Formats: sequence, structure tokens, C-alpha cells
Amino acid sequence: MSGRKTITPTHRYRDNDKAVGVGNAFWDRSEREGVAGIVAELAGGVLRTADGHEFVNFTCCSYLDLDSHPDVIEGAVTALRRFGVLDHCIPRSRVQIPALLELEASLGELWSADVITAISAGVASAGLLPLIASGHLGDGTRPLMAFDKNCHVSMAGAKPACADETEVVTAPHHDIDWLEDQCRAYERVCYVVDGADSLGGYAPVKELAVLQDKYNLLVYYDDSHSVSAYGERGMGYIRANAPILDERTITVATLNKAFGTSGAAVLLNGYDKHAHRVIERFAGALCYSQPMNTAAVGASLASAEIHRSAELATLQGKLNANVALFDSLVDTEQSATSYPIRIVPMADDTVIDAGRRVYEAGFYVSPVFFPIVARGTAGLRVMLRAGQTEDQIRRLGAVLAEVGAARPQVA
Amino acid sequence: MSGRKTITPTHRYRDNDKAVGVGNAFWDRSEREGVAGIVAELAGGVLRTADGHEFVNFTCCSYLDLDSHPDVIEGAVTALRRFGVLDHCIPRSRVQIPALLELEASLGELWSADVITAISAGVASAGLLPLIASGHLGDGTRPLMAFDKNCHVSMAGAKPACADETEVVTAPHHDIDWLEDQCRAYERVCYVVDGADSLGGYAPVKELAVLQDKYNLLVYYDDSHSVSAYGERGMGYIRANAPILDERTITVATLNKAFGTSGAAVLLNGYDKHAHRVIERFAGALCYSQPMNTAAVGASLASAEIHRSAELATLQGKLNANVALFDSLVDTEQSATSYPIRIVPMADDTVIDAGRRVYEAGFYVSPVFFPIVARGTAGLRVMLRAGQTEDQIRRLGAVLAEVGAARPQVA
Repeated sequence: MSGRKTITPTHRYRDNDKAVGVGNAFWDRSEREGVAGIVAELAGGVLRTADGHEFVNFTCCSYLDLDSHPDVIEGAVTALRRFGVLDHCIPRSRVQIPALLELEASLGELWSADVITAISAGVASAGLLPLIASGHLGDGTRPLMAFDKNCHVSMAGAKPACADETEVVTAPHHDIDWLEDQCRAYERVCYVVDGADSLGGYAPVKELAVLQDKYNLLVYYDDSHSVSAYGERGMGYIRANAPILDERTITVATLNKAFGTSGAAVLLNGYDKHAHRVIERFAGALCYSQPMNTAAVGASLASAEIHRSAELATLQGKLNANVALFDSLVDTEQSATSYPIRIVPMADDTVIDAGRRVYEAGFYVSPVFFPIVARGTAGLRVMLRAGQTEDQIRRLGAVLAEVGAARPQVA
Repeated sequence: MSGRKTITPTHRYRDNDKAVGVGNAFWDRSEREGVAGIVAELAGGVLRTADGHEFVNFTCCSYLDLDSHPDVIEGAVTALRRFGVLDHCIPRSRVQIPALLELEASLGELWSADVITAISAGVASAGLLPLIASGHLGDGTRPLMAFDKNCHVSMAGAKPACADETEVVTAPHHDIDWLEDQCRAYERVCYVVDGADSLGGYAPVKELAVLQDKYNLLVYYDDSHSVSAYGERGMGYIRANAPILDERTITVATLNKAFGTSGAAVLLNGYDKHAHRVIERFAGALCYSQPMNTAAVGASLASAEIHRSAELATLQGKLNANVALFDSLVDTEQSATSYPIRIVPMADDTVIDAGRRVYEAGFYVSPVFFPIVARGTAGLRVMLRAGQTEDQIRRLGAVLAEVGAARPQVA
């Protein structure tokens, strides 16, 4: 092999050496300790492993339990029978059965947006962000693409592709002053950020709207963690709170979390037919690859109907009550926020053992620890759902206290 | 706006200006002429538009018509009822219901491979190729990533991400001598290529095996267009013909074409548990994003059973008979090949009109023309399926002759 070229990577936007090194250490330990790599059947809201261990999932993003709603499952079945195929494979720009169009019309009416479906929010972002980078989706200007340093990897993963179409930079987290400096320096800026972070917290929509108004800033939100769980008809944090919903705001959201089905939606306002055509034709896999299958479409149509009914507010109310109950039992930095994710702080050297003891007591929570997060910030990630019972939450609270969680101070 | 920075793109691996410029001209004309943007309901193998026009689809990749096979649809329904969710949203590395594992075991047995599922072949490639580029999937060496110039955009789209992990180059089409030069120059090379091209033709698997043997060349195939339609148990062209099926050959294939369902499969041999863990944890959206839904899993389990039965060979036989019948009626460069795609040559200035006349006569074929292909190479793309009747194919042949297709020379 001597004399042959070896290669030095640029690692400008990604670095697998680092990702694999850090990640493998985390996952190997998680799996060795029995808090990852679990296989279990789901029935009646409880998971059961092959050897008979039963546990309640407190790390599931189906915040309203719509994933197991009978109407959602029957909606999938109905669509399968009606269309008679999962997909009739041909690019939808040529010929399509009406399935996706019906879903896009339904979600569009539900959330007052022009909707384009995708098989995942990641596929949507991988398709849309390079089109934004090149100015073909937007006002024709190539913007500086500023990716928030905490934005989800499904968006951050598009940096190298965007960097071939424009300039790409990593933005300090939610730093409005920094962002305004970029808006002053560049003809246009696009800020890419989570609407609701997967570790808790919302985007500063009002401060961003000031920059949108003053500098024509384009903001690209992934609101996957709040759609359905938050807001009227489950429109999500961004659509409920962002003051500007026109061509300066683009939102993508998975349908795979609180919405309870499969697939994703791109939510647009203010884009004309030409822009929609550009997305349909050139937004990466939205054009050439497989669409949401008819089962996912039928389930989503059924979930949309639930979103239109009084049941949605009831489920959101149950979720909020469960979050409040949890907050009354366990102290976290996220206490009293509307967001259904909590990180229960634990010591670096006890967090995995704590996670295993909680699992053995009948509850799955995710231990997060170095090297996935900084030393000194380890914890157990807890996600509340509407369908968890008061008894389950109280028992989890008791177990968490036993393994070292802090009780709230009584006011 | 004066004084603010404008940006000049690098366009090393992609160029939306060019893609959108070329593509919009093509699609605008296709839509204006009524051979794109068609919406129709499917029933009994015939598509019907809202205004009552009926046509048979001759541009559908479901080559065996398994997409509408009753067992496939009922398989989806059964899985929905059994698992009770489309997905129970949590990374599968933490907790998973057994759905994906059962499908991976079934496909693994069917095709004698270790199988990892994905929601699309594009998502699989976007996840795997950067891991290969960084040497984490392979022998630890960062290879030169040589993308065949004709390889599908779902692979070519990964160039910018790969270029941040190693060196990336575009390879002349199926040029073994060029590839051998690279193998001599670089410590390792990975060649990325379609197993079966979407415009016809197979990868030179035997010649590539010589380089695999001599230089440890890694070959990454997307065999989406031949899986199910070709080979024993529908293993596809690559698995049926590539002499080397070990860690030097990686194959991805959609389940959305001839397989008749939804999703994709990564087919591996010779990779150890550590390598599988690396894929599960770090291959992009395979790790963090939504998996194949249970409807797709159930449909795929049913399709796999059909692949194990005598019915598969019957369907392949019907497909081949339809291809042969078409070849007896219309002369194309692809005549007498086993591949079910034909390009019927047409003049640049008549191809669209020809496509419209064929559509009006009750058959959808795709016109391809400049700027999508070079001037002088326009044509109507015809895709045969097992379920098309002799009468339909004969009538299509007659219409194609009317619009200018050449009849085969009688030998």
C-alpha cells in the first residue's frame, strides 16, 4: 500500500471521527447497562419485553398518544383499502393519485397554511435548505445561512450542501444581537433554528420578528416537538406565537411525534404557485423519491379530524396536567414551562445506574451523560404524555426521588 | 441594501441555478402540454382522471404490480392492527417494537444478507455514504469517493457531505480503466454507482469484481430498479451477478418499486456487529429520524412471502413476456435486454406532441427531451409491468407507430 495517497479531511461542517468517537462511548455504555437496545411489544400503553419485564415509556414523543388512537389506525386501514396501493410509484409531478393532495388540503385548512408533505422532517429540510441557500426559495438573493449551534442534526446536516450554494455559518444559540450584526452585513440572512428544542425551550419568535420586519430576515423553523401538543388545533408553538407568518417564515414539522402518524409537513404562507413548483421539482427527495404512503396519509387525515374536534383540547389538557403533576413531584430547570420534556439532574457517576434502577422499577427514561452532554450536566430525560396515568407519574416521581432527584421547594 | 455583502457560490458539487434553469424549462413545457401534473384515481390497473379520461400507466416502477397485490395490502392492515401504532416514536437504538427487526430478519433470509431498513433508498445513501467517506464503514481508511457521473441524484446529493470527510470526484460512466488508475493512486477507493440505471443498463459487476479483488475497491450500488423484477427470489441484478458479496460490496434498494411497498433495504455481508452498531448510531437519519411505519413493514413482510413463493417467478415471467412483446412491436436501443425500461426515440420537435397523442389514446408514457437530455436524444420512456395485458401493449405499440416510432426490422 506504500506510496498511495492518504487523505486529510476538511471537516468544515461535520466530523465523523468526533461524532463516532463521542457517540460510541455513550451508546456502548448505555447498552452495556441495559438502558438502550431494548425490544418490547406495546399493548394498552405498556411495553413488555420477551422475558416479561413491563414498563411505561417516558421517552416517547407521541405526547398526546394519538399514535395508538383507534381512529388513527382505522384511518390508515381505510386509506389502504380505498387507494389499493401504499404508493403507485411514479414522480408526483407527472401523475399522482389524490392521496397526498387530500392530506395537504386538510392540513392546510387545519393550520391556515399552504402545506407540502414529505416522508420526514429531515427529508424536507435536506430538500428545502439548499433551495433557500441558492435563493430559489425566497426573494432571489443568496442569503447567509446561519444555523443555530443547537439546531437539530436533520437541519445541521444540510450545511455542506448549502455551503456549495452560498455562505454558511454556525450561529450562537438564540443570539439576537449577533444575528442583527449579520443582517446589517449581508444582503440577506436565513436563520435556521428549532421551534421547540428537543431538550426543552422555544425559539425567540418575537425578537426574530423584529429582525424579519427590519431586515427581511428569513427564519426556517423545525417545530416538530410542539406541533399538536401546543396551540389551537395543535398548530404548534411557532404558528401560534410567531408574529410574522408570510414568505419570511418557513416551518417544517414531523407528523411522527404528537400528531401520531408518519411523515412530515412543510407549512408555508405567501409563496406563489411558481415557488411551489420550484419546491415540487427541485427540493431534493421531495421530487424524486417516495412520498408518504397511503397508510400514513389515511392515519394523518384521521388525526387531522381529531385536531378539529374538542378531543384535541382534552388531550392537550391531560398532557398539561401530567406535566404539572410531574413538576409537583420533581424539581427540574424546566419546571412550570409548557413544554413536555424534563431533564432530571443527576451526578455524572450515578446517572446510568439511576436510569437502570428506574427501568427496573417499570419506567423507561433516557440517561444523557458525557460525552453526549458536558460533564456536570448529566440527567435523566423524561417526556410526559397525555395517556400516562396519575398513578404512573406519582410512582415515577417516587422512584426518581429514591435515585437522587430533588423534590420541589414548597413555596 | 447598498454596501451589504452579496455571495458568490462555489458550485463544486451542485448548482441550483443550473438545475432549476434546466429543469423548469422541461417541466413547464411538460405541464403546459398536459403530460405532467396529472391527478387520477387507480382502480383495476387503470387510472381515471376527474374528467373521466382513462389511461394505463406505462411509467410506473411497480414492475410486478405487487403494489396492488391483495396480500400486500392485507399485510399492511394486519400489521397496523397487531402493533396498534404506525410508529411508537423513540430512537430504535433505545427502545423498539419488534416490527423492523422482524422485517429485517425476513429480508435477510430472503436475500442472504444482513439487512437494515430505511424509509427510502435516498435516506439510506445520505446516511451511509458519509460514513464510508470517513472510513467508519469499511476498513478504516478514508477512500477516494468516486461517484459515477450518471449515478442517481439520491447518491450524488451526498457529495458535499462526503467532501467534508474525504476527497470526492466524479467518475466517467462505467470506465474501468479510469477506476483502476484511481485504485493505483489512492490507498482506497469507493465507487458509487447504480446497479440498474433508470434509463436502462446494468453496472459492470464482473469487471468491478476484478478491481475489488486486486485493490480492495469498495463498490456502493443502488439496485432499486432491479430488485424483485430480476433474479431468484427477486434478489436483483447485483446480488444475482456480482461475484463478490462481502464487505467490499454494499447494496441499497428501495422497496417502493417492484417490491411493491414502501421503504428501503440496505444489504450487507461480512460486516461485524460493531459495523452494524456504527450504522444504527451514526448513519444520519437511520438513527434519529422516523423508521418505516408498521403498515409498510406489514406490506413488506407479505411481499417477502410472495417472493418466497412460485408466484414471483410467474410474475417475472409475465414481465419478461410483456417486454418481449413490446420489443416485437417497437424498435429501441434497449431491445432484447432484460431490463423493463425502453426509450422510444423521437425527434426533438415532435416528442412532446407524440407524448400527448399517446396519452389521449389511453397510455401514459414520459416524454424526455432537451434540456433534461441532450438535443437529438429525445424520446418517450416506456416502462413495462407484469400486469399490463397483451391487448394494452399491442395498442400502445400501434399508437407509438402512429406517432413516429420505428418498427423492428424483421430478421
